[in-house]
Amino acid sequence: MTTALKSIKAIAPLLDRVLVQRIKAESKTAGGIFLPESAVKELNEAKVLAVGPGGVDKEGKRIQPSVAPGDKVLIPQYGGSPIKVGEEEFSLFRDHELLAKINE
Amino acid sequence: MTTALKSIKAIAPLLDRVLVQRIKAESKTAGGIFLPESAVKELNEAKVLAVGPGGVDKEGKRIQPSVAPGDKVLIPQYGGSPIKVGEEEFSLFRDHELLAKINE
Amino acid sequence: MTTALKSIKAIAPLLDRVLVQRIKAESKTAGGIFLPESAVKELNEAKVLAVGPGGVDKEGKRIQPSVAPGDKVLIPQYGGSPIKVGEEEFSLFRDHELLAKINE
Amino acid sequence: MTTALKSIKAIAPLLDRVLVQRIKAESKTAGGIFLPESAVKELNEAKVLAVGPGGVDKEGKRIQPSVAPGDKVLIPQYGGSPIKVGEEEFSLFRDHELLAKINE
Amino acid sequence: MTTALKSIKAIAPLLDRVLVQRIKAESKTAGGIFLPESAVKELNEAKVLAVGPGGVDKEGKRIQPSVAPGDKVLIPQYGGSPIKVGEEEFSLFRDHELLAKINE
Amino acid sequence: MTTALKSIKAIAPLLDRVLVQRIKAESKTAGGIFLPESAVKELNEAKVLAVGPGGVDKEGKRIQPSVAPGDKVLIPQYGGSPIKVGEEEFSLFRDHELLAKINE
Amino acid sequence: MTTALKSIKAIAPLLDRVLVQRIKAESKTAGGIFLPESAVKELNEAKVLAVGPGGVDKEGKRIQPSVAPGDKVLIPQYGGSPIKVGEEEFSLFRDHELLAKINE
Repeated sequence: MTTALKSIKAIAPLLDRVLVQRIKAESKTAGGIFLPESAVKELNEAKVLAVGPGGVDKEGKRIQPSVAPGDKVLIPQYGGSPIKVGEEEFSLFRDHELLAKINE
Repeated sequence: MTTALKSIKAIAPLLDRVLVQRIKAESKTAGGIFLPESAVKELNEAKVLAVGPGGVDKEGKRIQPSVAPGDKVLIPQYGGSPIKVGEEEFSLFRDHELLAKINE
Repeated sequence: MTTALKSIKAIAPLLDRVLVQRIKAESKTAGGIFLPESAVKELNEAKVLAVGPGGVDKEGKRIQPSVAPGDKVLIPQYGGSPIKVGEEEFSLFRDHELLAKINE
Repeated sequence: MTTALKSIKAIAPLLDRVLVQRIKAESKTAGGIFLPESAVKELNEAKVLAVGPGGVDKEGKRIQPSVAPGDKVLIPQYGGSPIKVGEEEFSLFRDHELLAKINE
Repeated sequence: MTTALKSIKAIAPLLDRVLVQRIKAESKTAGGIFLPESAVKELNEAKVLAVGPGGVDKEGKRIQPSVAPGDKVLIPQYGGSPIKVGEEEFSLFRDHELLAKINE
Repeated sequence: MTTALKSIKAIAPLLDRVLVQRIKAESKTAGGIFLPESAVKELNEAKVLAVGPGGVDKEGKRIQPSVAPGDKVLIPQYGGSPIKVGEEEFSLFRDHELLAKINE
Repeated sequence: MTTALKSIKAIAPLLDRVLVQRIKAESKTAGGIFLPESAVKELNEAKVLAVGPGGVDKEGKRIQPSVAPGDKVLIPQYGGSPIKVGEEEFSLFRDHELLAKINE
């Protein structure tokens, strides 16, 4: 999806949506040699940039999201809504689609 | 969908529906040069024009919509019901289909 | 669907069903010139003729329909059950399928 | 479905099922001239013959059926379970599948 | 499904299942003439042989089955789990799949 | 599914799952003559070996399983998760998939 | 799914997800002879490495997971989200997808 946004910071996810940016794989080896682009694999790790207020349960109460901005998460291989701001790509997932937090 | 409406202001969305109008991409470059039509990409940003009273939960209470008229929102790539008033195009989405608010 | 009804007034929708009649587009231009039939587009506007008592929620209470006879509504492009009385066509929609009220 | 029943009166619908018989279209014109069989259209009007005690909601209470024996109803174009007793055809619908009552 | 059962009486249906045996159509005419096998139609009438204790609702209470052993019922044209004991065939339906009781 | 288990007794089903072993058909006739393997039909009878603690309902309470170890049951023709321990085959079904108890 | 993780210990599953590692089949026979790789079958046994806090029920309470780190479990033949850390493969399952605990 294309936007005319100047900054991704303008995005405030609604309900249980979580805005993430995929972490780029290292483009050089441990020894410092740059890898050709085709050898750089796409990772399923992402950084949480913004989190919606949470979905609403059947009694009208907010369901607390399970991640927070700054968290590193494991995202599923498929799904999510892609957003493009300038040349950068981001994704919106629903909170329950995120697989795991990554603690470092 | 075609209508014989004189003005989009006549539309009052029902239940959890939200009436939006897609924001048009700039048709000239930052330098002021007009872009050919084929180079103007369709944006996934829209302005909220009207919001229904909210859907009804299982206990008969209204679910508060998460956007308000005047909000700028990120809309999904597919879905929504298109409405045509004269030459202008609008869309109706359900509140939970909207992805994010855009704060400027 | 074909009926042997003498009048559409005999129809009393059940549960959350709403009986509507599509509004015909003007068959002549603003200047008074008659349009050929192929130029008359089918509109997605309809007039509500009759409304059922409302569906029943999980606690056995009626869900109040959101439209009333006489309302002008925006109907979805697909769906609804067509009814034919003589040469006239009508449709039955479920209340939640109607998109918006049209205020004039 | 074929049965060996002597009379349709033996059928007592279960739960929310409603036994109906489709109303036959007039086989002669207003002027009394008999129509060839191919010109007699199948109607979507039916007479209610018997009504089940009603389905059971999530709290174990019966949901009151919305029609009664003797009612004339508008039936959907598709669906229903056909039953054949001798040479006559009947149908079983679920209460919520019936579209409207026909008041005469 | 094949079993090594000696008698169908050993089968005690679980939850909301109902064990029935299809009623065979008469293989001779009213006048006493035997019909060739191909002329004997399969009926949708069945006799209830055994009934499970009933399914469990969301509050843990049993849902009372709507038929009892000995009842004659109208069964749907498709569905049910066939069971074969020796050369005889039986079927298991869920209680809500049965269409009607047949009172004689 | 292949396992490296020494004994099926190590398997403790989770939630509403039930571990069963299909009962083998007699491989000789009543008269004591051995049947060729192709003439031995697969039966839909099984012996319950182990039962999970039961699924959890919407209020967090365990749903009591309807069978117990040692029960003989009628299993559906399709479904279940096959497990292989050495050369022997077993299956895991969900409690509500079992069709009937077999009382002998 | 590819990750840039140094250690699988960084993964903290969210909601009802369970991180497991498939148990490798013995690559030599009881007699100590090494099997060719093609003869080593993939097992459906796995070791639980980490367990999420549990899903949330409709009243907002956590549903207690049915396994704990260190448990050996039977996993279904299909499903689960694969994760690759270096050369090692892991999977994330939802708690209710695990078939059985394996007690040794």
